[in-house]
Amino acid sequence: MENIEYVLPGEIEKRSFAIIGEELKERGIVLPPEQEPVTKRVIHTSADFDYAKTMTYSPHAVQIAKELIAGGADIVTDTNMALAGINKKRLGEFGGTVHCFMADEDVAREAKARQVTRATVSMEHAANIDKPVIFAVGNAPTALISLYELMQKSDWRPAFIIGVPVGFVNVEAAKELILKTDVPHIVNRGRKGGSNVAAAIVNALLYQIRPV
Amino acid sequence: MENIEYVLPGEIEKRSFAIIGEELKERGIVLPPEQEPVTKRVIHTSADFDYAKTMTYSPHAVQIAKELIAGGADIVTDTNMALAGINKKRLGEFGGTVHCFMADEDVAREAKARQVTRATVSMEHAANIDKPVIFAVGNAPTALISLYELMQKSDWRPAFIIGVPVGFVNVEAAKELILKTDVPHIVNRGRKGGSNVAAAIVNALLYQIRPV
Repeated sequence: MENIEYVLPGEIEKRSFAIIGEELKERGIVLPPEQEPVTKRVIHTSADFDYAKTMTYSPHAVQIAKELIAGGADIVTDTNMALAGINKKRLGEFGGTVHCFMADEDVAREAKARQVTRATVSMEHAANIDKPVIFAVGNAPTALISLYELMQKSDWRPAFIIGVPVGFVNVEAAKELILKTDVPHIVNRGRKGGSNVAAAIVNALLYQIRPV
Repeated sequence: MENIEYVLPGEIEKRSFAIIGEELKERGIVLPPEQEPVTKRVIHTSADFDYAKTMTYSPHAVQIAKELIAGGADIVTDTNMALAGINKKRLGEFGGTVHCFMADEDVAREAKARQVTRATVSMEHAANIDKPVIFAVGNAPTALISLYELMQKSDWRPAFIIGVPVGFVNVEAAKELILKTDVPHIVNRGRKGGSNVAAAIVNALLYQIRPV
């Protein structure tokens, strides 16, 4: 077949990352070494080089997140698609679990009664988890707003926030709230993001840590 | 909180689609009415207006896909994220099921032995399903290549192809192969796509059909 190149299955990802590296170079973009594997995997999952300009990291964010995962931190996400995309086997090797409370019946019931989103209630439930938690928000800006409000109301702090919801209503403002906090974070500024992006960020972190 | 607008949970999606409509107008883009709800939902899931230019529909594609779903067609996808994202309850109301064979052990074993991707083998397995099937490919161009090869080798035809893999190796060429076939299709030309886009397309179709 014309234009189809045969590439060994194990080589496809490697080749893709090489192409992403070359095209970043052509665009004159140099990513900080710590951030490079994460931003590149986000571009890999979206084919969208805009992310090279909008991905925002707090100081030493990648190092901090890797240490949390290596220490057995759990992950809470706001979508079942991110839950499906995160490498749970790899996370489990470090003692971590991924939670998504969005489909829980008691979450739905409470959200309906209070006229808030299920994401809001999910985050409140997750704040009760009694171990370090990385929040990976790929869909609902209300999840980020909920985390921000919990921090305003109390001394509670999440261990880490991956803030990459996508959309048109309150998405940009919700991300800016998280950028103002002192919680270590990886946020994609602007409207773009998604559950695929959230999963890609978590997996990029996971793939850089060797199980002991 | 400054810049955060309170929107009732049930209104967020409606408001988002209204914003997408306005911004398409500002860009001078008029989508054909049949395609509009599908392309808009793809933009909704990606916040990326590029899709308005690259989404490609064969004649009456949306009508054909809706009739297939209403008639109980199954869906086969190449990623567990798309499987997670598709509204399975709604699909089930019409008699359809979503399959993803990517994590099956026999698929992995056969792929390894033949030095092809699991997506290739998954599609070959799916071709044996004895009812109309919509193939929703959100990740692997090799899935599209596999479908094309099956069609070259025999009279077998999938009922419909949603071809939206994302990436850098063979992705564009694989989509062009599908565009050449006589199978009804929705394809996003170029490198962009993803499991979120595949799920959005299926859900956009589902939400336009009323269960009888």
